[in-house]
Amino acid sequence: MDSSRRAFVVSAAAAAAIAQERSDFTAQEVIARIRKNVGVPWNEPTVDTIKSGSPDTVVKGIATTMMATVDVVQRAAASGRNLVITHEPTFYSHEDKTDTLKDDPTYQFKQDFLDKHNMVVFRFHDHWHAHRPDGIATGMVQALGWEKNVDPQNGRQFLFDGMTLGELAKQMQDKLHIRTMRVIGDPALRVRTVAGNWGYANSIRPFARPDLDVLVIGEAREWELIEYAADAITSGRKKGLIVLGHIPSEQAGMLNCANWLKTFISEVPVEFIPAAEPFWRPVA
Amino acid sequence: MDSSRRAFVVSAAAAAAIAQERSDFTAQEVIARIRKNVGVPWNEPTVDTIKSGSPDTVVKGIATTMMATVDVVQRAAASGRNLVITHEPTFYSHEDKTDTLKDDPTYQFKQDFLDKHNMVVFRFHDHWHAHRPDGIATGMVQALGWEKNVDPQNGRQFLFDGMTLGELAKQMQDKLHIRTMRVIGDPALRVRTVAGNWGYANSIRPFARPDLDVLVIGEAREWELIEYAADAITSGRKKGLIVLGHIPSEQAGMLNCANWLKTFISEVPVEFIPAAEPFWRPVA
Repeated sequence: MDSSRRAFVVSAAAAAAIAQERSDFTAQEVIARIRKNVGVPWNEPTVDTIKSGSPDTVVKGIATTMMATVDVVQRAAASGRNLVITHEPTFYSHEDKTDTLKDDPTYQFKQDFLDKHNMVVFRFHDHWHAHRPDGIATGMVQALGWEKNVDPQNGRQFLFDGMTLGELAKQMQDKLHIRTMRVIGDPALRVRTVAGNWGYANSIRPFARPDLDVLVIGEAREWELIEYAADAITSGRKKGLIVLGHIPSEQAGMLNCANWLKTFISEVPVEFIPAAEPFWRPVA
Repeated sequence: MDSSRRAFVVSAAAAAAIAQERSDFTAQEVIARIRKNVGVPWNEPTVDTIKSGSPDTVVKGIATTMMATVDVVQRAAASGRNLVITHEPTFYSHEDKTDTLKDDPTYQFKQDFLDKHNMVVFRFHDHWHAHRPDGIATGMVQALGWEKNVDPQNGRQFLFDGMTLGELAKQMQDKLHIRTMRVIGDPALRVRTVAGNWGYANSIRPFARPDLDVLVIGEAREWELIEYAADAITSGRKKGLIVLGHIPSEQAGMLNCANWLKTFISEVPVEFIPAAEPFWRPVA
């Protein structure tokens, strides 16, 4: 590239940057643009609301994340992303109720940090799942490299060629960098059909499907689906359940969200900040 | 022992066995005796009810267990224990509701097995916790060998001499034979005070206690206590959370229950049948 061409490119980029620099690009405007682009009606009631900060806050940058932990909001602040778009709660309950947390030092630390850094946290859960295709599921398929395994008859199901449950679990553990995956079922089970119930599995139904070899979930109560899966297998059904942990089971869906936001937001940088898997395990 | 003495012992044992052999020792009578001996009022509503079988069933033997899985009820039947006393649900929900399970093959398999073997399943949850001392907590202290660590000021708390969180977790993993333990916190944390929230932890409060270094739980939702614990630690609090898994976290409490039942039931054999930890993990 000759120097005059380079000068042109640089100045064009600078001009674009200036054009994009607005002092009135608010959190409310970002949310309005999400609602306009998500492709499904905005259903109330929803947990997809602002959990901290004012809708009038001027947005300098956007961070998407699976879970707005203190670690994530600190990293977002450090890179100048003052709007955090989180899939999971900020304040330790599905409804993010803070009335019983007012005197809690961990809550106070987090709320103070958000306030001092002029941050907004917006939850994007219900409508990212409602987006077609499901924004979380799409991201997980990309992270797992399962695009070629999608069942042509059922986009929510994946076909495999008889690899074992042990091999499948190990592959997923490696691809998603999981330290504390848990599995139920015979490791030698031959796997042909797999479905994902990314996040919390509140029903036994997806696992009970007779045509399914393996269900992948984030978490479930151990006296509900976990006991059911163990019983189904003991009673002779050839099935497996892979429990990834909640964060690893939906994380890539918020990387997908960052990429999606970039298709209609160019005023500010948009970045995905992964939430850390919370657990480690003692070495045996 | 000379032969005449031995003959006397044998015949006395035989006589005792005959005296204890009753054809009218019913499940209802066992439950009535539990209610009489548990030492606290029987509070209604309670989940401590018969989940399968008739109260008039003649009891041949009793098996206590943490969770009446298909595996456990099969083992109980094989050893002639037709009354199973379980701490956790039989049919995959806290209330053991079966109305939506009628057409489910796993439910049908389990229910058919219980019916064919003339078995009764009784849940003993609320009142075993209400027993003083808590029957589950007592069993866990015994299994962990923590009797000497009980805080003289607070029987629900345990004192340690500064071993690390990593060492404590490893010790618990070994003593309770856990394959898929998960831990949050700095492995090098020095541990002095520990409390157990055996089973499901539905609140952040026990972990939030400022005087506590480590809380041990069975399970918790990952967007509730798990996120809270990670945030507390990131915000500078020197704490750890050990997640044993639900079954390992209460299992020994039902061994303790078998021993307790033997103090007032001599008509039939009483045996503890451990429920298997459901999970395995892929090798890294």
